[in-house]
Amino acid sequence: MPVYKAPVNDTLFVLNDVLGLERYNNLPGFAEASPDMIEAIVGEAAKLSEEVLFPLNYSGDQEGCVRHDDGTVSTPKGFKEAYRAYYEGGWLGLAVPEEFGGQGLPYTLHCAVGEYTSAANMSLMMYPGLTQGAIAAILVHGSEEQKRTYLPKMVEGTWSGTMNLTEPHCGTDLGLLRTKAVPQGDGSYKISGQKIFISAGEHDMTDNIVHLVLARIEGAPEGTKGISLFIVPKFMVGSDGLPGARNAVSCGAIEHKMGIHGNATCVMNYDEATGFLIGAENKGLNAMFVMMNEARLGVGLQGLSIAEIAYQNAVAYARERIQGRSLSGPKAPDKKADPIIVHPDIRRSLMTIRAFNEAGRAFLLWTALKSDIAHRSPDEKERQAADDILGLATPILKGVMTDKGFEHAVMAQQVFGGHGYIEEHGMSQYVRDARITMIYEGANGIQALDLVGRKLALNGGRAVMALFKEIGDFCEENRNDEQMAFFTKHLKKGLNDVQAATMWFMQNAMAKPDNAGAGSTDYMHLFGLVVLGYMWAKMAKAAQAGLTDGDSARADYLKNKLVTARFYMERIMPETALRKARIETGADTMMELAAEAF
Amino acid sequence: MPVYKAPVNDTLFVLNDVLGLERYNNLPGFAEASPDMIEAIVGEAAKLSEEVLFPLNYSGDQEGCVRHDDGTVSTPKGFKEAYRAYYEGGWLGLAVPEEFGGQGLPYTLHCAVGEYTSAANMSLMMYPGLTQGAIAAILVHGSEEQKRTYLPKMVEGTWSGTMNLTEPHCGTDLGLLRTKAVPQGDGSYKISGQKIFISAGEHDMTDNIVHLVLARIEGAPEGTKGISLFIVPKFMVGSDGLPGARNAVSCGAIEHKMGIHGNATCVMNYDEATGFLIGAENKGLNAMFVMMNEARLGVGLQGLSIAEIAYQNAVAYARERIQGRSLSGPKAPDKKADPIIVHPDIRRSLMTIRAFNEAGRAFLLWTALKSDIAHRSPDEKERQAADDILGLATPILKGVMTDKGFEHAVMAQQVFGGHGYIEEHGMSQYVRDARITMIYEGANGIQALDLVGRKLALNGGRAVMALFKEIGDFCEENRNDEQMAFFTKHLKKGLNDVQAATMWFMQNAMAKPDNAGAGSTDYMHLFGLVVLGYMWAKMAKAAQAGLTDGDSARADYLKNKLVTARFYMERIMPETALRKARIETGADTMMELAAEAF
Repeated sequence: MPVYKAPVNDTLFVLNDVLGLERYNNLPGFAEASPDMIEAIVGEAAKLSEEVLFPLNYSGDQEGCVRHDDGTVSTPKGFKEAYRAYYEGGWLGLAVPEEFGGQGLPYTLHCAVGEYTSAANMSLMMYPGLTQGAIAAILVHGSEEQKRTYLPKMVEGTWSGTMNLTEPHCGTDLGLLRTKAVPQGDGSYKISGQKIFISAGEHDMTDNIVHLVLARIEGAPEGTKGISLFIVPKFMVGSDGLPGARNAVSCGAIEHKMGIHGNATCVMNYDEATGFLIGAENKGLNAMFVMMNEARLGVGLQGLSIAEIAYQNAVAYARERIQGRSLSGPKAPDKKADPIIVHPDIRRSLMTIRAFNEAGRAFLLWTALKSDIAHRSPDEKERQAADDILGLATPILKGVMTDKGFEHAVMAQQVFGGHGYIEEHGMSQYVRDARITMIYEGANGIQALDLVGRKLALNGGRAVMALFKEIGDFCEENRNDEQMAFFTKHLKKGLNDVQAATMWFMQNAMAKPDNAGAGSTDYMHLFGLVVLGYMWAKMAKAAQAGLTDGDSARADYLKNKLVTARFYMERIMPETALRKARIETGADTMMELAAEAF
Repeated sequence: MPVYKAPVNDTLFVLNDVLGLERYNNLPGFAEASPDMIEAIVGEAAKLSEEVLFPLNYSGDQEGCVRHDDGTVSTPKGFKEAYRAYYEGGWLGLAVPEEFGGQGLPYTLHCAVGEYTSAANMSLMMYPGLTQGAIAAILVHGSEEQKRTYLPKMVEGTWSGTMNLTEPHCGTDLGLLRTKAVPQGDGSYKISGQKIFISAGEHDMTDNIVHLVLARIEGAPEGTKGISLFIVPKFMVGSDGLPGARNAVSCGAIEHKMGIHGNATCVMNYDEATGFLIGAENKGLNAMFVMMNEARLGVGLQGLSIAEIAYQNAVAYARERIQGRSLSGPKAPDKKADPIIVHPDIRRSLMTIRAFNEAGRAFLLWTALKSDIAHRSPDEKERQAADDILGLATPILKGVMTDKGFEHAVMAQQVFGGHGYIEEHGMSQYVRDARITMIYEGANGIQALDLVGRKLALNGGRAVMALFKEIGDFCEENRNDEQMAFFTKHLKKGLNDVQAATMWFMQNAMAKPDNAGAGSTDYMHLFGLVVLGYMWAKMAKAAQAGLTDGDSARADYLKNKLVTARFYMERIMPETALRKARIETGADTMMELAAEAF
């Protein structure tokens, strides 16, 4: 039977020892998040995840969602009750401003908690996840009336939200979208068209569903400059604030997918449905990007979540399953064979996943903290600096942590041998669920292009230069620290590679943009390797500080942290050279074949 | 809708231009395989694959197998008829000696054909695939009577075969197996025990099923030295040679798996079933290894098959799907967007898969030819040399081509974006099907250990030294060929890396075997990169020879071959340095954590 235990100690190490969250108590909401409070909150989230959400993960996958002939959709048994427990616990609005019913706590804390809940039940957590994205868009772009009408119920959890972007003929290239909006003269619009792949588009868990829909107002310009964003509620909201008449939006089908069976992925039909413009006319993409950016962090988080639960199950199996003898002599001589965790090749897998998960956790929370600073700091310069890094980190977090999350779910499945391939042990589900994270909210190739084509050059490369400087300074500052020399040496090597690759783009991609496209995915991973290496160096420093301070209760934990840090530097970091070499080969060979020649 | 077209031209290029099959017409069966004959046979196989097997692939996955209450198992609609078409066409016995009803043609040709049939319908082809493994074991280890009793029907296809190794508590470590065999004094045994993960263990496609079962004769030594192999027919064979009384072997359940839904993976219960010893007492593993080695080549082949069909579908989608504009300006100005094949990141994926598939096809057929020489050459030295390489190549072919096969099925799925995640387009099936190839017939970690722990040192390293010399000689011979310099330069670099890694094992793994285990998977992939690079260099040479000869009908094909060869050398080959670096870090860090610390 699958297992899951929220990695509370590791979260607290990152929040307290690595990020020093206490230092930020000048930010709104942070003073309330004292170390004790944080410990209590993550402890509660762990309990909810382990005891309420996780027990429904496997059954939810097996059962899936069902669309009935009347267009209603049933979620798997127990989902509704577990979702209620989630929102009644106040988790949905943890980081939402108090004036809209939230708790105003740090978004960083929200992400720490989100890792657990998504690990425990990714499909179920997508329902409130989509709601949170919609809340973010309404918070930033909604009118006061829209905020008052929708936010309290959404934050409370009794109404949910969705994002409606994709149409059958367009996903990445939203400029092609056709759904149309006809103004009715009373401030409302009639929305008509079909949207596909709409997560949580229809279900039985909330009293209303607030669809955010991209559409083209009649007569708007072609392409992305003519797209507007609309609120289309499933039930029209009456003057009493309660759901009333059914709107002309319906679920035409649910998709049969490789995974996330517990989440309803819907074809949504808009048939002159009543919608309300949110934000400015033809500025829909801007508004949507508020949701997208947050959603991308949320998907990167899912990559970590699945890799963590897959890892934990692989570890449990590797400790129990006896098969073969250790190459260095029997380790369990009383048994007929040794547990497979004695075999180096099994360790290679486990250590690799572990090394990415622990660094990924730090990277996620470090990025989330940038988001908090960017949105809450009283200091404009600080806000801008944090926002720069946030923008840069977002595609890396999304792309790298989901590519790795999937790869590592597969690696964990492999530890089970044949037992990993049958559905019974749950490993197949982690692989199938993780697979979508590489695709949705912008396929990872798009994340790489966002990084190389947009984020790198933004404001004259201000963000990337700042981050390179930060990592370079860290290496410099710790150069003479004997305990840190090993880590900074490897980190510096990686930093040199990503700097050289960046330079190569500057010299070769201006005149020939295909050179940027050809190296984009390798660059995203190269950058990810370095940022995760930076996280490892920071964690190594914090671990060493803890050991120096004589933190005896955590001595083993901190020593193991240093072992894993070494593993990352030795085994993982050398990949930067390969990525750089690939980037520097450019686009010529890969662009040479005619399309018909493939 | 999924597409599949057997890559006949590429197969013929490998067989004729690269391997020069004609040169081997001194071997039995090869004289019959004239170039015209080969072209006719692969053409027929292409037709069967495209028209008969492939149309059932998707429906077979959707429908799956059903076990009924009486223990019988139904295969998906149409499988029985398609299987009949396959065996009635004589495909099952293509390479089996004529005296047992086969055609005695080259095993190399059997593998060429096998790529197509497995690509078209892997689940269906596993039924005859298992039969072929069982045929091989009976051919080598069976008594004359056993051969007469079972082989003709199996070669004909009206009876099928299985391999019964795994038990609930043991897979890799067969020394732990418990199924017991009690001698009955009449030459027969009563077999009792449970076997799991038995592919094609029960089904409705043949008149009889010949189970080959590993069991322990009462009183046999513990461990692997006490294991014997038995023939246990589903129906006892009467003196008339026809199936008679039902034997006490039954299917207790079929597994719910991630993929290969069209193949019945059975729990088989042996309840004092009558069995007959095959080969010598307690030498069952030797006999089983005859099946295993051939089966491992067959699984490597499956890796190629799935990567090829996944590639073809990704190409078709990338040519049709319009989304976004080329970075170098519109390529389809008449349309609202360009087909996504114009985007470098899509090309990166397609070229990567293509580069592995074309080299993998050459590697498969090159290895199969070694098998033919090892089994058919009149010259003992030639036989031994070929058998050496075959033994070395088998784990690499199995491990590398299935790891890559899966990785590339995922990569091809990614080209589809969200459309790849829903079952409708078939990409999910390729990924789910490919996943098992990394696991069965020895999980890939076991292949890596077989390579490093067994094959490397065998006969004082004779095989590996011979192969290094062959590749080194190739580089040397072509050093002054201007057209080849680019390829041999990169190949030589890779060869140096694998030689250095081999040396590192010699110096560091004798005293500390964990150092071999820690680097085994990286070594397998390092070796694979170099062997595939060698295939590319050979293909480049053959392509250049064709162009020099003015082969105008194939000029475009040959030029494209050279482009893909360059891509492999530039983008893929540099990975050898990373693999070598990882190997040289050794086992210390990964073995440091206590088992409880994970």
